[in-house]
Amino acid sequence: MAPILLNTAGTDHNEYIEHEEVHVKNPHLDSMEEDILYHFNLGTKTHNLPEMFGDIKFVCVGGSANRMKSFAQFIHEELALPGDAGDIRDICAETDRYSMYKVGPVLSISHGMGVPSISIMLHELIKLLHHARCRDVILFRIGTSGGVGLAPGTVVITDRAVDSFFQPQFEQVVLGKVIVRSTELDKDLAQELLQCSAEIPNLPTVTGNTMCTHDFYEGQGRLDGALCSFSTEEKLEYLQKAHEVGVRNIEMESTVFAAMCRVCGLKAAVICVTLLNRFEGDQITTPHSVLTEYQLRPQILVSHLIKKRLGLIQ
Amino acid sequence: MAPILLNTAGTDHNEYIEHEEVHVKNPHLDSMEEDILYHFNLGTKTHNLPEMFGDIKFVCVGGSANRMKSFAQFIHEELALPGDAGDIRDICAETDRYSMYKVGPVLSISHGMGVPSISIMLHELIKLLHHARCRDVILFRIGTSGGVGLAPGTVVITDRAVDSFFQPQFEQVVLGKVIVRSTELDKDLAQELLQCSAEIPNLPTVTGNTMCTHDFYEGQGRLDGALCSFSTEEKLEYLQKAHEVGVRNIEMESTVFAAMCRVCGLKAAVICVTLLNRFEGDQITTPHSVLTEYQLRPQILVSHLIKKRLGLIQ
Repeated sequence: MAPILLNTAGTDHNEYIEHEEVHVKNPHLDSMEEDILYHFNLGTKTHNLPEMFGDIKFVCVGGSANRMKSFAQFIHEELALPGDAGDIRDICAETDRYSMYKVGPVLSISHGMGVPSISIMLHELIKLLHHARCRDVILFRIGTSGGVGLAPGTVVITDRAVDSFFQPQFEQVVLGKVIVRSTELDKDLAQELLQCSAEIPNLPTVTGNTMCTHDFYEGQGRLDGALCSFSTEEKLEYLQKAHEVGVRNIEMESTVFAAMCRVCGLKAAVICVTLLNRFEGDQITTPHSVLTEYQLRPQILVSHLIKKRLGLIQ
Repeated sequence: MAPILLNTAGTDHNEYIEHEEVHVKNPHLDSMEEDILYHFNLGTKTHNLPEMFGDIKFVCVGGSANRMKSFAQFIHEELALPGDAGDIRDICAETDRYSMYKVGPVLSISHGMGVPSISIMLHELIKLLHHARCRDVILFRIGTSGGVGLAPGTVVITDRAVDSFFQPQFEQVVLGKVIVRSTELDKDLAQELLQCSAEIPNLPTVTGNTMCTHDFYEGQGRLDGALCSFSTEEKLEYLQKAHEVGVRNIEMESTVFAAMCRVCGLKAAVICVTLLNRFEGDQITTPHSVLTEYQLRPQILVSHLIKKRLGLIQ
């Protein structure tokens, strides 16, 4: 079946909607009396969403619920907000699908692993921002990844999110037809993040393409899954090809994140730290304490940008 | 690119491995000194896996961590095991990727939402069962789903797991090539479950095809996502086509679950309750207490089969 290319929003459109509300792309929503955001356990009739979320300017998302709670506590300290960071409560505590924390103008949400899991979260997040009448919101995915030719601990700011065939696109099946969406991210925001990284000591950072796969083992060329039908040489050849087209890390959510933010005119960036160099192995053998320090790096970078944008640092 | 059809294991093979250990399909594993099951926070050097897991005969998996904890407590009561069900601890407590509980010969594990999330879990689970030298293990996915022409609360035992094009297959990209695997499930096990359902009062149960999608909103023809580019009529036409080819419910994990279990010669079944009838709507508006009762139904059915197999009931 011939794929259909949808390019709903471009850079011009992004600029046009500056200072505008978050736009959903669904004419049916206007006619709904109530909208239940099922996986957040929130709704337009049961919650005052503009009051709860109307002042959100920065949304940070990541796979692990514990990590996104730590980030919420970290950004609370960084922004020197009143109250105890230990008291921050999970807004989605009554469901275990996602965790959500609000800290001043920052929303921190977990999204689980893989494209389907983050896509459910993004549908409900974008509707939440729309119902709450938020303006000028920026989204960051802060995650972990496998590095391609980089020292473990390197932070990669995504230039282009590409699929397993190295194409900068996201394919999805809608009513039995394949739809293809562009995964272009905001170039200015990526540059701003790179500039921030230069201002922070000991934060090795590069920009590069990020490959998004739908499987952690066979799908990323790992030799250590329950199933593996290829040789070490074939694995390395695939990673080498990826490296040649500019792929510097591999994760499992960036294409749909980029595609959905772009369609809805939301500025977005992907910032992932690498936990290992895939040319050197597949298993993550680094000690827990070192991994914990690595995982802080995207948080430190995004926090720096947020503080600059809020005028808290020069 | 032409897809490659892999039919590694068939029914004959399933019978052949009866009373045999769980088989991984990866020649590289033998040469690894240590295997770290990263997302479980377990490893062959740090844990005595045969001692911890060697007696497992039934593995039950489901999306929600809370639900799989409840199931562990429920099956503890059902099997009348010694000790307090409230004391059951999460074996994966030090990571928040998955939750895992062991109750006698039953392992209960959460897998998050979507094919990528469950596939990571299955790779590590199958390796765990292999390292632990488990024998004659049966896997059940007990989940929730959207019904297609069924009253909410109906339990669907999956006949065939099909993709968004209604094909009984699972497509995956491995080193840039599309691989296609069969999603055939164990017919005898499905029949045994159907027989069990007839022995339990007030447990409306059918067998039918289960469609597995990679998105909850557009991918399942919902009109209430942040994005929607089709009409109510187009949605209903797609659901009608699905119904005509025997699809009775829609969820997000069954194809890869069926495919991976089949390749590794593991008998497996998918049992999901429907939370709504998609011909009548998209939003889940049923009260929480009713949903909770619905979610118990697959648990009751699987528990009944386990008790029969263990000779605890006739």
